[in-house]
Amino acid sequence: MARWALLLEYDGTRFVGWQHQITGPSVQSVLEEAVGRLAGGAVTCVAAGRTDSGVHASGQVVHVDLVREMTPAKMVAAINYHLKPHPVAVVRAALVADDFSARFSAIGRAYCYRILNRPARPALLAKRVWHVPQVLDEDAMQAGAQLLLGRHDFTSFRASACQASSPLRTLDRLDVRRSGEMLEIHAEARSFLHHQVRNMVGSLKLVGEGRWAPQDMGRVLAACDRGAAGPTAPPDGLCLVAVRYAQDPF
Amino acid sequence: MARWALLLEYDGTRFVGWQHQITGPSVQSVLEEAVGRLAGGAVTCVAAGRTDSGVHASGQVVHVDLVREMTPAKMVAAINYHLKPHPVAVVRAALVADDFSARFSAIGRAYCYRILNRPARPALLAKRVWHVPQVLDEDAMQAGAQLLLGRHDFTSFRASACQASSPLRTLDRLDVRRSGEMLEIHAEARSFLHHQVRNMVGSLKLVGEGRWAPQDMGRVLAACDRGAAGPTAPPDGLCLVAVRYAQDPF
Repeated sequence: MARWALLLEYDGTRFVGWQHQITGPSVQSVLEEAVGRLAGGAVTCVAAGRTDSGVHASGQVVHVDLVREMTPAKMVAAINYHLKPHPVAVVRAALVADDFSARFSAIGRAYCYRILNRPARPALLAKRVWHVPQVLDEDAMQAGAQLLLGRHDFTSFRASACQASSPLRTLDRLDVRRSGEMLEIHAEARSFLHHQVRNMVGSLKLVGEGRWAPQDMGRVLAACDRGAAGPTAPPDGLCLVAVRYAQDPF
Repeated sequence: MARWALLLEYDGTRFVGWQHQITGPSVQSVLEEAVGRLAGGAVTCVAAGRTDSGVHASGQVVHVDLVREMTPAKMVAAINYHLKPHPVAVVRAALVADDFSARFSAIGRAYCYRILNRPARPALLAKRVWHVPQVLDEDAMQAGAQLLLGRHDFTSFRASACQASSPLRTLDRLDVRRSGEMLEIHAEARSFLHHQVRNMVGSLKLVGEGRWAPQDMGRVLAACDRGAAGPTAPPDGLCLVAVRYAQDPF
């Protein structure tokens, strides 16, 4: 047996999220079933980011213990064969050290949140973006976002169901970029609280609409009160794009 | 009554194509039903590009005769309201001259064909790209593509069902660009023959695989024989991105 790291891409739309739940199919259950067929028995897959229902991934990282005697290319092909027809694909596979943990060895997570900012709803990007019809001021959003950088108590942007032991997190990047009708919000941290990215985006939208000033982001952060922040942005626009490790496993 | 131009975006996956067919729903039928509800009677929508089943559009242009007394923004919102839940959206609307034809006034059409070039099948871009697992040489493809530029008899790249009176077309652009795992092929001409872009892409893929030399594209073109060219690329990767007019209606 050996430990493998898998780079995973998925369309989160029809899943209850990464983690097992009794309410429907999860990415984890679909992947464990596919890998289990290859292994000839039950396996456990551990992911770097436990994405919510409707949240996508282009760079999720998972580890699982499996046979050693297979090339990475064959491992990718074999798991993908068993994953069909689910919208989940293994993009890369690599043998890693036995003490590698996709979750606990990760030193950074990068998310991208996309807002389609135009009157018409999305046709080609349905379920891939948050549709906001009213014009957003991306410069104001960017200014507000910078007030959240650094190490803070992020209670104001934390879901009530969050199970983390501490609300302290260090936000390394929160950038708002416009490309035509599309706003991309790039968020990076060692780890995030439950719903933290979507809650930050929900508040930034209020800044973009002019209902809040950029400085209000600092006020909301300091309040340490979920009620002070804006509503949670929908999952559709969120994608886990990369997980960073001290040494890239792929 | 007045003539309106509409800028249209759609996911072509579950349509039989732009045009009415008895075999299933078309983009045209869905749009005419939505506009018809607004008009209170039957309408006819004329499109610049009669896209095939499975082909997408982010910049299709359509004209239709409707009431004059409405702002473009209200027209967009009203048609989109009636288009729900179909994956078709009007992005812009504009009043145009009575003799404007989305089809016959067009002086250029631009298509983009995307190939996902990696071993793993697409999860997030399923039905939006052509998945080609074997490594493609984009420089060879680009060199071969340049041999098709200019005014030629494109019989070799023309569907047998093509109804155009002449196989002569002037190809203004055929560029192959790689961005990581994605190959984008940009094609521009005043107009294209039926399946012309997909047939050119099908042959360029053979060049990319090294099964053909770039110069073979010139040989195939000169043959004026559909049998000399490669197979038709699947519709999934194709998107009508822009239609050009002497004066931009939007």
